[in-house]
Amino acid sequence: MKPMGTPGREVRIAVIGVGGRGFGQMCTLLGMPDVKVAVVCDVYEDRVKRACDKCAEMQGFRPDGTLDYREAVNRADIEAVMIFTSWQTHARIAVAAMRAGKYAAFEVGGASSVEECWRLVRTSEDTGKPCMMLENCCYNDTEMALLNMVKLGLFGELVHCEGGYLHDLRDEIGKGDLIRHYRQDNFHCRNGELYPTHELGPIAKYLSLNRGNRMLHLCSMASKAAGLRAWYRKNRPDTPFPEKQVNEGDIVTTMIKCANGETIFLKHDCTTPRPYSRFGMIQGSLGTWQEDGARLYLEGISPIHQGEWTHSWESDADYLKKYEHPLWKEYREFGLRGGHGGMDYLVLRGFIEAVQDKKQTPIDVYDTASWMVITCLSEQSVSMGGLPVPIPDFTDGLWMNRPDHDNSAYTLERIPE
Amino acid sequence: MKPMGTPGREVRIAVIGVGGRGFGQMCTLLGMPDVKVAVVCDVYEDRVKRACDKCAEMQGFRPDGTLDYREAVNRADIEAVMIFTSWQTHARIAVAAMRAGKYAAFEVGGASSVEECWRLVRTSEDTGKPCMMLENCCYNDTEMALLNMVKLGLFGELVHCEGGYLHDLRDEIGKGDLIRHYRQDNFHCRNGELYPTHELGPIAKYLSLNRGNRMLHLCSMASKAAGLRAWYRKNRPDTPFPEKQVNEGDIVTTMIKCANGETIFLKHDCTTPRPYSRFGMIQGSLGTWQEDGARLYLEGISPIHQGEWTHSWESDADYLKKYEHPLWKEYREFGLRGGHGGMDYLVLRGFIEAVQDKKQTPIDVYDTASWMVITCLSEQSVSMGGLPVPIPDFTDGLWMNRPDHDNSAYTLERIPE
Repeated sequence: MKPMGTPGREVRIAVIGVGGRGFGQMCTLLGMPDVKVAVVCDVYEDRVKRACDKCAEMQGFRPDGTLDYREAVNRADIEAVMIFTSWQTHARIAVAAMRAGKYAAFEVGGASSVEECWRLVRTSEDTGKPCMMLENCCYNDTEMALLNMVKLGLFGELVHCEGGYLHDLRDEIGKGDLIRHYRQDNFHCRNGELYPTHELGPIAKYLSLNRGNRMLHLCSMASKAAGLRAWYRKNRPDTPFPEKQVNEGDIVTTMIKCANGETIFLKHDCTTPRPYSRFGMIQGSLGTWQEDGARLYLEGISPIHQGEWTHSWESDADYLKKYEHPLWKEYREFGLRGGHGGMDYLVLRGFIEAVQDKKQTPIDVYDTASWMVITCLSEQSVSMGGLPVPIPDFTDGLWMNRPDHDNSAYTLERIPE
Repeated sequence: MKPMGTPGREVRIAVIGVGGRGFGQMCTLLGMPDVKVAVVCDVYEDRVKRACDKCAEMQGFRPDGTLDYREAVNRADIEAVMIFTSWQTHARIAVAAMRAGKYAAFEVGGASSVEECWRLVRTSEDTGKPCMMLENCCYNDTEMALLNMVKLGLFGELVHCEGGYLHDLRDEIGKGDLIRHYRQDNFHCRNGELYPTHELGPIAKYLSLNRGNRMLHLCSMASKAAGLRAWYRKNRPDTPFPEKQVNEGDIVTTMIKCANGETIFLKHDCTTPRPYSRFGMIQGSLGTWQEDGARLYLEGISPIHQGEWTHSWESDADYLKKYEHPLWKEYREFGLRGGHGGMDYLVLRGFIEAVQDKKQTPIDVYDTASWMVITCLSEQSVSMGGLPVPIPDFTDGLWMNRPDHDNSAYTLERIPE
């Protein structure tokens, strides 16, 4: 990335989907002096109006508003389309954007079919337009320091990583805007690893997925669905919800095998009462890091004790500071901004700078497709009792020779002609 | 169990397998005034001699020694055979013991074939002689307090449990007595969940497995095997071990589905550097307990905070004390003894008292078979890329109506005629 705070050339964008998340991300974008929102789109008029008002206030002119994403993506005056809609509409809008010759970026979420992932890949390849999932957790301070440590070899040869999305969302799913929240539809209707990318994105960087390694297959299993219905009964007794069909198991677990022999374990848990965690774990031949407890053990570095239990955990705090990613050092001097502890700004900025330089996005269409496809593959596996399901090689063999990122958050590459 | 410290009638036993573990357990047994060791057996003469010497010292007479387990189990003067041999010989010796009309007990370990588990079940049914896996972790203070809490409904409807055997054994596997340690053979030759019962035993109690619930099928996956070889290279460079074939993946993960919709996740990790953990987790519609961090969150009980993260963990210490199992209250007054924080004594005592009263053992042959079968089933699943493998119903349908234990650690039942 460029030195922070140095504006690049002006980029005009479309913002599609301005509910809670889209509105917030748009505000972070409006804080960048080299970004202008030329058009805002949502299926709800009130949201469009609110977003246009905000743009007028922050950037000095009022963007156009539309209810039709096709109109938005086809604007001649924009270079990029940033999509914050429901999970199930990310891919179709991104495809339309790339076909219109625009860079496409969308918020995190899982895919509904394998084919929509291939469609993203083929459209990006055919049009030469990048497509980036805005996986903010790849840009979090902890995950970037860990990536630094992994690439420096502190954990030795990696053998296993874990991660999860353990976030009690019963209140949001059940009490929120009942008509307008896609999350509720997904939890009522589907049963699988609905939200894998917050943990899988960083793990993909640790394991160099699509760059000398790749995911081969997965098995998923879902527990019964007891949490949401119990919550409905207690908190919404006078509605039809306590009798609503709920398909998403409270706990969905997924095991993934990689070409180089590593395993990945993912856990999805959004409907039981519990504190938030992304459940991270990195395990290698020389050490282990565990998010829960914020701790690590590194052979030959962490202290050894006498007695039966010779190993004990150390706090990870000093290590995360010592190995802080250079981008985060610079970012702290520049001043953190945007949501989620600052990582939102970085992922948005990574995309905007790729657009400015007409380069490949730091998370490319192969990463995007291979991370989001986990959702529909896990649904398939759950429905077949955990049957192993192959994970497509969206690179068609290029993964064997694609160079690994140089860890500089993350390399912007020339787009092949 | 009976009031602690009240001796029952004298029970004479055979002890088979007196390596490190067997010798230690024998010493705990010798500390019980109503237990006499009549015969000691091992395949190594030096071990037999050492054990006989110890018995002579502690019980006032010298038991017979033999190298042949058939001779030991067929002794007319014994009622029970306690087996502390290699994992792969537990079942065949226990079968011989039951056929000889003796109660059988063996140390924890996994099965090599599904058939050997059925053979245990059928032999026990045919002879009317109980067969108990000495799963000490079922008797640990923490696990018993948690069982109390589960049965009192503090976690609501259970949906998911986790557990593991995370124990850095590279030193024991690689540096120990190279010829005489069966663990090394298992790690070199097999690839699966080698040691599931320390965590699965307590989970089976929480989920009432074989008593109104049962395990239906599992999927297992293994990472590459990097840890042990790296350790051999560094610590045994001048031996053939660095070039030895190592089959056991460093991390083996297993997902199990239960009839009542719960899922169980198991993790086996003995060849990477890390502190010990049994990786316990209990999740229900009303709360979560996590061993790592020694913490829990109970809805409506644990404090709620304002702001983005409303839930936060509490230490489990006060809860484990408040809900301490009655057996443990009594045990603390009596005085803890034996290995592993006292749980070894309790599991041995549970078996001995069943023998004294001619009742069913607190962990019966159906529990034993269904816990140890996980090992060979996981090997099958790993070898087939995580394919779901059915878990036999060793009760042949009786699980639907077998009454749940009353939680009194654990009910000794009349043996059906």
